[in-house]
Amino acid sequence: MRVGVLGAGQLGRMLALAGYPLGLEFLFLDPVEDAPTDGLADRIKAPFDDRAALDRLAAAVDVVTYEFENVPVEAPRHLATWIPVFPPPEALDVAQDRLAEKTMFRRLGIPTPAFAAVDSHAELLDALSSIGLPAVLKTRRLGYDGKGQRVLREASDIDAAWQELGAAPLILEAFVPFKREISVLAVRSRSGPSVFYPLVENEHRGGILHRSLAPAANLSTATTQAVDAHAAHLLDALHYVGVLAIEFFDLDGTLLANEMAPRVHNSGHWTMDGSETSQFENHLRAILGWPLGGTEAVGCAAMLNLVGSVPSTSEVLSLPGAHLHLYGKEPRAGRKLGHVNLCADDPRTLALLVQDLERIIEQTAAPRR
Amino acid sequence: MRVGVLGAGQLGRMLALAGYPLGLEFLFLDPVEDAPTDGLADRIKAPFDDRAALDRLAAAVDVVTYEFENVPVEAPRHLATWIPVFPPPEALDVAQDRLAEKTMFRRLGIPTPAFAAVDSHAELLDALSSIGLPAVLKTRRLGYDGKGQRVLREASDIDAAWQELGAAPLILEAFVPFKREISVLAVRSRSGPSVFYPLVENEHRGGILHRSLAPAANLSTATTQAVDAHAAHLLDALHYVGVLAIEFFDLDGTLLANEMAPRVHNSGHWTMDGSETSQFENHLRAILGWPLGGTEAVGCAAMLNLVGSVPSTSEVLSLPGAHLHLYGKEPRAGRKLGHVNLCADDPRTLALLVQDLERIIEQTAAPRR
Repeated sequence: MRVGVLGAGQLGRMLALAGYPLGLEFLFLDPVEDAPTDGLADRIKAPFDDRAALDRLAAAVDVVTYEFENVPVEAPRHLATWIPVFPPPEALDVAQDRLAEKTMFRRLGIPTPAFAAVDSHAELLDALSSIGLPAVLKTRRLGYDGKGQRVLREASDIDAAWQELGAAPLILEAFVPFKREISVLAVRSRSGPSVFYPLVENEHRGGILHRSLAPAANLSTATTQAVDAHAAHLLDALHYVGVLAIEFFDLDGTLLANEMAPRVHNSGHWTMDGSETSQFENHLRAILGWPLGGTEAVGCAAMLNLVGSVPSTSEVLSLPGAHLHLYGKEPRAGRKLGHVNLCADDPRTLALLVQDLERIIEQTAAPRR
Repeated sequence: MRVGVLGAGQLGRMLALAGYPLGLEFLFLDPVEDAPTDGLADRIKAPFDDRAALDRLAAAVDVVTYEFENVPVEAPRHLATWIPVFPPPEALDVAQDRLAEKTMFRRLGIPTPAFAAVDSHAELLDALSSIGLPAVLKTRRLGYDGKGQRVLREASDIDAAWQELGAAPLILEAFVPFKREISVLAVRSRSGPSVFYPLVENEHRGGILHRSLAPAANLSTATTQAVDAHAAHLLDALHYVGVLAIEFFDLDGTLLANEMAPRVHNSGHWTMDGSETSQFENHLRAILGWPLGGTEAVGCAAMLNLVGSVPSTSEVLSLPGAHLHLYGKEPRAGRKLGHVNLCADDPRTLALLVQDLERIIEQTAAPRR
């Protein structure tokens, strides 16, 4: 069985590493010069909108998935006309448009911050009059890791933000002074059932995920059940197959949906070492119609991203319960180069390990030659 | 960092899959037409005694290891003249000769069955007079999975066994009516320390490992400590670096060393899902001089080999705690095609899972087309 994957980044690399033991083979498609999957899987080096390349991919594989959220939706749509593509391209289409996404959340009864479409300066002023300040002005499309958005704190911020972003279709959202971000990973198999990983607590730095803790602390059963129910509604509405990640702002115990990602997700990397089945294996099981694996946490886990530079391997591996995952990428500022999972029996031990790891990263992370 | 590996079988494949997350790259050398590492790592397709090919390997990597026990020892010896090779070729040399191996065990005070060298028919009769019947006549070299040996139960078996095996240097060993086989995996890092995995209980069928259970049941602390001490003596005597496996016959609580393997080992496959650090990762950490990872068992685990044919993936994955590991090999009678690890919190649950898996294998394992 051969799996085609649009995108050959670290998520694709980790999909392949999870799939080989299941007897799967892989073929990636990505236009980049050097890809993290190079050396461990074949790749068609072509733009995502190259029809001939897409057709070559489709002819060579049994099923297609994607690991890159900004793949033009026409690519999976085209492939889906003659080969199974999961998650369904419709999910990608919705996820690529913050307005469509939030509108779907609202339609399904999933709480969100207040929001409004903004396609003109007049609409921006209208939206501000109902939503108020502070607010966040975002491009509807192609935003990630904090790019393509501006916080409006006072009236004087409005025009600058409009000048910067106004050329694209926008959405204005109420600014949520959230304490933390919570995310859920839901998985639905082609053969029917859905499973949910424990909720995760995420901390960002400079707009990039810095750290995830799993399971998230201080969440009531009711909150967890509500989140799982929201995720289940989305899976149903989207006829979803695969891993779906949804991020929520935690505003003093009230969870407001921020966005979803129709793919394996950075906030699920802890599952590689902290759960019975990794998100990567479960995504593959899902799109192949195989039974899903257990999603329970084994003890507790922390995931720390290695951004821009990598620490000393030897120092990291000296920590008990540390698992290093490097992506084979050249160091560059702001680039995710790998992550470290820390596993422990209890949150107290975990917190100490996290401190140790933060110190090691601070002291030894320098661009590798 | 690039690791060269002599042998590109399933052990090499699993080494690569464990090494990629550590940021390692791999280059294999193996003369076979199709190798389990093909598609996920580069390979030099050449005989093990091809000096030019060995030189190409050495020039392209930072360190060399081997995953195939019958590599001619001249290959790692040649490589070791200009690049680090671990485990040391001397360990391979000893392990390839049952007489040298048992002589070393004896010298280090590690109990073995009675044995004697046999190079002529007269020496065979001499050896039989001291060791007695039943006994096992084995070729000193190139035996594996029960090949190259004959059990002598009565006097009339002697001449047939001699006729079959007598052309090669032999060893006669007392037949041990063992209840079970116990194995230990020891790991020693280039940077010094050694770690030991819990003892494992192995069951063979037709001379091929069928099942391992970890940790082995009903072993006293004294026995475990004695085995770890034996392993430590071997590591020291061999200036060993990497994973070393030693197999023992369990004769009513007395453990007699049978053989060792200077490499990652089939009886250690359970560590991929049942231990904090897999034997593959720890072997790589060891040969690179990195700190070794924890070797404790998480709950208990069973490993079942898939020999000759593979069961239904879907059925296997329907078992809670089941982890499938396929090697990408074409089915053939007697061929190891993969294994399944089963993990559970307690031996009772594990025993039920093993029963379920045995039934699935029986009912659905047929050669794949």
